[in-house]
Amino acid sequence: MPTVAYLGPEHTNTHMAAQAKFGRRSTYMHAPTVDDVFELVEREQADYGVVPIENSLEGAVTHTLDRFIDFKHTPVNIVGEIEFRIQHYLITQPNVKISEIQAVYSHPQALAQCRKWLATRLPKQVRLFETNSTSDAVDAVTVRVDPTRVTQPLKNVAAIGRKEAARKFRLRAMPIQDERENKTRFLILGLGEPRPAKRNKTSILFALKDRPGALYNALAPFKREHINLTKIESRPSKRKAWEYYFFIDLEGHESEPRVERALKQLEKHATVMKVLGSYPVAIR
Amino acid sequence: MPTVAYLGPEHTNTHMAAQAKFGRRSTYMHAPTVDDVFELVEREQADYGVVPIENSLEGAVTHTLDRFIDFKHTPVNIVGEIEFRIQHYLITQPNVKISEIQAVYSHPQALAQCRKWLATRLPKQVRLFETNSTSDAVDAVTVRVDPTRVTQPLKNVAAIGRKEAARKFRLRAMPIQDERENKTRFLILGLGEPRPAKRNKTSILFALKDRPGALYNALAPFKREHINLTKIESRPSKRKAWEYYFFIDLEGHESEPRVERALKQLEKHATVMKVLGSYPVAIR
Repeated sequence: MPTVAYLGPEHTNTHMAAQAKFGRRSTYMHAPTVDDVFELVEREQADYGVVPIENSLEGAVTHTLDRFIDFKHTPVNIVGEIEFRIQHYLITQPNVKISEIQAVYSHPQALAQCRKWLATRLPKQVRLFETNSTSDAVDAVTVRVDPTRVTQPLKNVAAIGRKEAARKFRLRAMPIQDERENKTRFLILGLGEPRPAKRNKTSILFALKDRPGALYNALAPFKREHINLTKIESRPSKRKAWEYYFFIDLEGHESEPRVERALKQLEKHATVMKVLGSYPVAIR
Repeated sequence: MPTVAYLGPEHTNTHMAAQAKFGRRSTYMHAPTVDDVFELVEREQADYGVVPIENSLEGAVTHTLDRFIDFKHTPVNIVGEIEFRIQHYLITQPNVKISEIQAVYSHPQALAQCRKWLATRLPKQVRLFETNSTSDAVDAVTVRVDPTRVTQPLKNVAAIGRKEAARKFRLRAMPIQDERENKTRFLILGLGEPRPAKRNKTSILFALKDRPGALYNALAPFKREHINLTKIESRPSKRKAWEYYFFIDLEGHESEPRVERALKQLEKHATVMKVLGSYPVAIR
């Protein structure tokens, strides 16, 4: 069974997504940052890494995209993807009333995804505090979080997190229903290349010369080869202000002649180009 | 003199950018969220609003983009932009040694922008805590932040923030040099439409039917009319997973015939399309 490194403390959504994919018998290692997950795979201390890449409400996970820009020569490929439905829970001590909650702790993405619920259901003067993970938020409801401060046990405080984390500390967890589709897509990182499946996806990273029509010209080969683009994302180059890298996901495998042709054409327009991986499309 | 609403508490970068544009004699109102800034302009309680839209290291400010998606019928236009160089300071009590710092507080973007400096210059075991603004971070160095906890005065703690905020509390501020170009672009929001300047920019928002070549076809009119696109950004629709809205900045004014023609063509491909504003390009 493989060793799988994932972003987070335990009981986060990334942990649950990794378990859903690799099963209970694999060995799991949690890593505190996206960078650490990549490094564990690069040093072959883990066979696979699992990191979030995109949420259907909040958009791209920029840390993950930027790791590919900052380390263009990493041997790590994208070898798969996982789609995972996110269900948030409002977690409190068992005796706390909703109407008395004064503060809510959670990861910024979780707070953002529950913004409407929090604004309509909790007292007007409630304060929101950001934590590094949803697990850290649950810690805030149980114990002190910050080693530099002396704190008293918390009252009238809630966290947004996963049910599993609440159960561990015997806290109350109440599902926060949201009418919108809340899914996160995770990347599986590895050193190998997976065999082509029935439906594949290829992720690429590139930069273009700054001239009129540059992006249009770069997309032309995909149109010509009838290749569907499922996603385009831009990120700052960090070398020069207002200069960008692009991430594109396209339907098909790198080894298909039409994909090969299109990528060769794109290379002519690009100052940088890298295939991040071809991998099976997640089952939806 | 106009009344200007800006995102933030006082002494944040948004406040400084607003002052650099509107001068010391304007009236300033600070608003706690991007949403509040829009609302102050919508209700005509402020003549202008100032919100961040993009940082040269960290990328798009997604709250601002999403406000345009969530309220497509807002009467608010983009009437200008401000470019502002960001200088971060490490702020501590006067007697704290760098080698003894145990925790650093700041806004997630400021922490991200100083990630390399923090990793190489501060003790290995230093902990990072996210705050809602750089001003809140400076508060953390001086007073308790969290009303639900009883805290003692802080030792060996630092904030990343602006010099002006440190000065107010008689704290020590040390510039954190970074070799990379760190600039933020802000939008000026208003109800009117500015007169065309010498060099103008137009921002648009649109959604496309999900079909092969959709984005390519949408960009064709701009290529045909020789209109340069300075920026493209995608954001989740939030209605359906993996469905996107696009934001494009293009060179030229809405009233120029070639821009008019291109926008008319784009409209044929789009399920949603809105011009967010035509405005003078910021002087660099």
